[in-house]
Amino acid sequence: MQLPVRSRLLLLLLLRASGLRAGERSSSAMEEITTEKEAEESHRQDSVSLLTFILLLTLTILTIWLFKHRRVRFLHETGLAMIYGLIVGVILRYGSPSSSGHDKPFSCSQEDRPFTTLLVNVSGKFFEYTLKGEISPGKIHNVEQNDMLRKVTFDPEVFFNILLPPIIFHAGYSLKKRHFFRNLGSILAYAFLGTAVSCFIIGNLMYGVVKLMKLVGQLSDTFYYTDCLLFGAVISATDPVTVLAIFNELHADVDLYALLFGESVLNDAVAIVLSSSIVAYQPTGENTHAFDAAAFFKSVGVFLGIFSGSFMMGAVTGVVTALVTKFTKLHCFPLLETALFFLMSWSTFLLAEACGFTGVVAVLFCGITQAHYTYNNLSVESRSRTKQLFEVLHFLAENFIFSYMGLALFTFQKHIFSPIFIIGAFIAIFLGRAAHIYPLSFFLNLGRRHKISWNFQHMMMFSGLRGAMAFALAIRDTATYSHQMMFSTTLLIVFFTVWIIGGGTTPMLSWLNIRVGDHAPSVEEINESRWLYFRVGVDPDQDPPPSNDSFQVLQGDGPDSERGNRTKQESAWLFRLWYSFDHNYLKPILTHSGPPLTTTLPSCCGLLARCLTTPQVYDVAACGINPKTHSVPHSQANIPQVPPCQNQEQLREEDSDFILNDGDLTLTYGDTTITANGSSGSRTATTSLDGRKTKSSSEEALEHDLGMGDNEVTSRGTRLVFPLEDNA
Amino acid sequence: MQLPVRSRLLLLLLLRASGLRAGERSSSAMEEITTEKEAEESHRQDSVSLLTFILLLTLTILTIWLFKHRRVRFLHETGLAMIYGLIVGVILRYGSPSSSGHDKPFSCSQEDRPFTTLLVNVSGKFFEYTLKGEISPGKIHNVEQNDMLRKVTFDPEVFFNILLPPIIFHAGYSLKKRHFFRNLGSILAYAFLGTAVSCFIIGNLMYGVVKLMKLVGQLSDTFYYTDCLLFGAVISATDPVTVLAIFNELHADVDLYALLFGESVLNDAVAIVLSSSIVAYQPTGENTHAFDAAAFFKSVGVFLGIFSGSFMMGAVTGVVTALVTKFTKLHCFPLLETALFFLMSWSTFLLAEACGFTGVVAVLFCGITQAHYTYNNLSVESRSRTKQLFEVLHFLAENFIFSYMGLALFTFQKHIFSPIFIIGAFIAIFLGRAAHIYPLSFFLNLGRRHKISWNFQHMMMFSGLRGAMAFALAIRDTATYSHQMMFSTTLLIVFFTVWIIGGGTTPMLSWLNIRVGDHAPSVEEINESRWLYFRVGVDPDQDPPPSNDSFQVLQGDGPDSERGNRTKQESAWLFRLWYSFDHNYLKPILTHSGPPLTTTLPSCCGLLARCLTTPQVYDVAACGINPKTHSVPHSQANIPQVPPCQNQEQLREEDSDFILNDGDLTLTYGDTTITANGSSGSRTATTSLDGRKTKSSSEEALEHDLGMGDNEVTSRGTRLVFPLEDNA
Repeated sequence: MQLPVRSRLLLLLLLRASGLRAGERSSSAMEEITTEKEAEESHRQDSVSLLTFILLLTLTILTIWLFKHRRVRFLHETGLAMIYGLIVGVILRYGSPSSSGHDKPFSCSQEDRPFTTLLVNVSGKFFEYTLKGEISPGKIHNVEQNDMLRKVTFDPEVFFNILLPPIIFHAGYSLKKRHFFRNLGSILAYAFLGTAVSCFIIGNLMYGVVKLMKLVGQLSDTFYYTDCLLFGAVISATDPVTVLAIFNELHADVDLYALLFGESVLNDAVAIVLSSSIVAYQPTGENTHAFDAAAFFKSVGVFLGIFSGSFMMGAVTGVVTALVTKFTKLHCFPLLETALFFLMSWSTFLLAEACGFTGVVAVLFCGITQAHYTYNNLSVESRSRTKQLFEVLHFLAENFIFSYMGLALFTFQKHIFSPIFIIGAFIAIFLGRAAHIYPLSFFLNLGRRHKISWNFQHMMMFSGLRGAMAFALAIRDTATYSHQMMFSTTLLIVFFTVWIIGGGTTPMLSWLNIRVGDHAPSVEEINESRWLYFRVGVDPDQDPPPSNDSFQVLQGDGPDSERGNRTKQESAWLFRLWYSFDHNYLKPILTHSGPPLTTTLPSCCGLLARCLTTPQVYDVAACGINPKTHSVPHSQANIPQVPPCQNQEQLREEDSDFILNDGDLTLTYGDTTITANGSSGSRTATTSLDGRKTKSSSEEALEHDLGMGDNEVTSRGTRLVFPLEDNA
Repeated sequence: MQLPVRSRLLLLLLLRASGLRAGERSSSAMEEITTEKEAEESHRQDSVSLLTFILLLTLTILTIWLFKHRRVRFLHETGLAMIYGLIVGVILRYGSPSSSGHDKPFSCSQEDRPFTTLLVNVSGKFFEYTLKGEISPGKIHNVEQNDMLRKVTFDPEVFFNILLPPIIFHAGYSLKKRHFFRNLGSILAYAFLGTAVSCFIIGNLMYGVVKLMKLVGQLSDTFYYTDCLLFGAVISATDPVTVLAIFNELHADVDLYALLFGESVLNDAVAIVLSSSIVAYQPTGENTHAFDAAAFFKSVGVFLGIFSGSFMMGAVTGVVTALVTKFTKLHCFPLLETALFFLMSWSTFLLAEACGFTGVVAVLFCGITQAHYTYNNLSVESRSRTKQLFEVLHFLAENFIFSYMGLALFTFQKHIFSPIFIIGAFIAIFLGRAAHIYPLSFFLNLGRRHKISWNFQHMMMFSGLRGAMAFALAIRDTATYSHQMMFSTTLLIVFFTVWIIGGGTTPMLSWLNIRVGDHAPSVEEINESRWLYFRVGVDPDQDPPPSNDSFQVLQGDGPDSERGNRTKQESAWLFRLWYSFDHNYLKPILTHSGPPLTTTLPSCCGLLARCLTTPQVYDVAACGINPKTHSVPHSQANIPQVPPCQNQEQLREEDSDFILNDGDLTLTYGDTTITANGSSGSRTATTSLDGRKTKSSSEEALEHDLGMGDNEVTSRGTRLVFPLEDNA
């Protein structure tokens, strides 16, 4: 049992040293000049090591640009970040002098268990020390191995508490996609059942591998069954960021995109909670690390408890934010709104951690709630601000993790590479993925009208990359032999999948004949879609640009219009229930959209309904923005002039993601906004199509919205076409 | 000599505890369950204390909104944050149980100086401890005083390394103001000479007060002359955030605004470096704390060295960023651009710290350089992104510091309030401010044609608030008796000035008859200027809305047109030199604007010039945005159609801030953009005025720009009127 010698990262690195510095600054002149110099040296080294990472990220950014500029698709930015990390890791490992370090270990015996704070009397002066962790006796001399390596190796909890939350929140916040909700059932099945199946299959296979290793004599320390299961949980967190980026760029099928993205987002949460539950599986009595029914059910209880608790935390803070933004006129002050949004989202993490739940999971569900409700209450400026803020944070955090991964291959000092284990792991993750994708797809296809085709299944199978989450879970605990081996193997798996599989996506797509926007991009198109490229894999809030196929659907002709109806029915049972509840109660309560509560709630709740319905309809004009004024030039072109709404109580339907139709309604949102910069001719056409589609979809879906949808959604869409308000 | 018992903040808090957690997670089952529980408890408490701050900030934001909504001006958001902080501080202090804490101090003797790392043998297991700081023997039992108080008290270096950089960078990044550069000479005089004078006067006065206290017997410990000087430096950092917010809101005089803002930004840097130099003043030999010429000159050297070094660091990273953004087509990918911008700006801080300079100062100059050069190379989307990003960071950091200040009054455990010292300090800062504002203004007025009037001087005198910087400098070192007294006094001074003087700004302005936009704001105006309100004190990149007076200037009639000429001549000597150098060489090298280098550099450098001039003129159309297409609707109204430029080598003049004319040229930038949301009628008028003005100013200033300026600046201006590209 041992703790890696690592210093804490980022601010921590800075602060720890600075703290010392403050300490000696307090000393009056001439005293402890050596300590001062030492601390300053340490502070300087901290800065240098952080600079190393910044240099890495800067290099990555410049190379990404070059790649995007030249349309290189075989290597994703994350793969690139890893390569640069590797190079710097090699340099640090073999290039820097193995200095002995000036922190001399000092031993002093103590009878009791360790204290978190220690006071040490040094020639009459008292110094305060804080506990950093335990070190196995054999490793004491490794403590001092290499100063620079120590500096660039940082606390694994940094990943969990600083780097993962923005990534996960951004994923949740980008989930506001019609295609996601349409495939919700399948996504949930893949994420929950799939991850569990994958975890158990990988765990059991790896246990076999471990037994084999024991037979061959390759295992030098214990490796329990629970460790294997933990490895299964850790490695089941997929992260197809590379594949999704390419999907986005190639305009691949939107349903496949939604399935992959949704699965990967949710299975991260499942994997975290699953690994916590496995850690919590502690059989009582002598017979540790064997099966114990009580402990097993306790673990299941832990899983359910943590998952539902985190879910609740996230949902509750999201709902509170929605209520606050609804009932105040904060949207007149986008800066305040953005700050509040940021703080509330962050508080989810802390709240969950304070209550003993998992902050990262809570943040995911908070992001989804924020996107679904709060987003509608935000001002247009805040919408873009919050998105951009989290986009930048996500981008930086993700690339940081990947370049750290590259670095860790050489700077992490306790790698255990076991060829048998590594080969076994590759086979196990392949089988584990196959064992949940194909059977689950089969069962889902029984229920689905719009089947998941074989080609889609193969593509999903192929896209099971491992990334940031698997790494963060694996590095979280590298104290024992088994965990170190797991960590090294995970690292290799991430490298392999990101480079090889990520690079093979484009050939695979064409080999599997998966529909891709087949038009060769013209110059104008490139210009139009450039706004997508830079968001590749980062902001999937916008639907991927429509393939020709979905344009046909949009126009309502061809064989696909039939498919639209089928899709609608398919997700009907669970979905319509949730949809009507959400549409009739949650949305009116939490946002300014949907039908007024006074009409949907039973009459006995009249007073409550009146309180919750804001007397003034959410009106941007209250802040001085009149969308109508600006939308006229575009909207007048094709959209029939609908007389202004008679019923003043009717609230706006701002968010039509839920309407179950194959037509690309929400494309108004993404597509028209994007391309308004380019030629406006083709856009007005799209707008008119949307307008028509909206009417038909609202006719189909919700009778009480009839006659409203067309006017309001269109004005909404058009308003986004000209979001002049953004730029003040 | 002692170090306050404080835990490290924010992430630190989280990480420290998490680190422990990771430590025990590594333990196999059943072991050290007590330690685990303890660590989890600590982690939970950390989360709770962070939640406290988030709650505080959320409350502040909501109340700010209420105040802005109701147009309450007597209390600024920072004052509010302090009040909430005070309340929570009282609750924590007197409401929470004074738990004994579970961190038991442990003493063990050691012969040598303290190590930074300690290995402790606890019943056979080794634990690693890191040095936190020294504790005076008398205070050992205070270590455990109150857990909650400890948790909310954090390392002062957090302020310097995390919270101040975004504030200072944002200040620098917002400095791109014509009025700032016009008054550069006066601002530099106030910032350098003024701060030095103020520091020495306050220091000497306080030394008198200290002598008096010794006589009366109120002084229980030593208080050196250098401590007094340090206090002078600390308290000389002004922060008129409250006053500037009100100026912005009331449309007060732009020159006064520029003087105050510029002075406060630069004097922060001076105060930091000054205090470092005073700390570095360590007379040799026996006679410590008396005057020593060698040590004095060393201090002066330290001041110059640190200041110029930090300046260089900031300028260099700014220039590198400008070059990178110029020579790559990164502006096609705003996300990458924003990330790069953020990383480069952060690296300034680290680079300066790594080289032993002051990161905060470097960040300031980096911000100014970025605003002056890099900003011109950024895509329109990145411009708003970077601004908004740093705006949010600035807002959060500033309000965090102010609410922490409120909290610190009650939770900081070593306050020393000495009535004589406090009263003396108030008198001293009053006299210190008076002693530099009035004489300096007198001397400056000798050189200035456009005098700083008495009323302006009184207002500057009155606006000498103290804020975040003074607090951060004072809390940096609270180890000795004298420093504790200084800290407590600084806290009170900040409270007093922010509340009382901040609240008195509006009456003071009217009492001093300072020109204020005298029109009662109409509904339309409120709508238009609401974009300003939320930026109050935060984003002064936009000129404050023009008072009627400047509109007259703009129109070129009335007595003020004469003033314009005078102003131009006034700043001519130093300024024209820099302007022509900047315009002819720096801007063409670093940005895509200005005359081509091939014309300005001597012919011998022809090759170099050709290399540095990008072959393709910076063309937004390269990314698919054609500003002309969109600008037509507005620009065709009044601007004469100038035939397209014949000379393909001519580069655009993107940034005309420097042209020395009283006309509000840059208002095209701020004002038109802001108000494009409202009525567009009055705006086209402004645009046309700008167009005219541009021509005349370019005629006056730079002959070789003749004929270009009109066309290009206008197209630039109009492009910003319709920044559709922002919203993709």
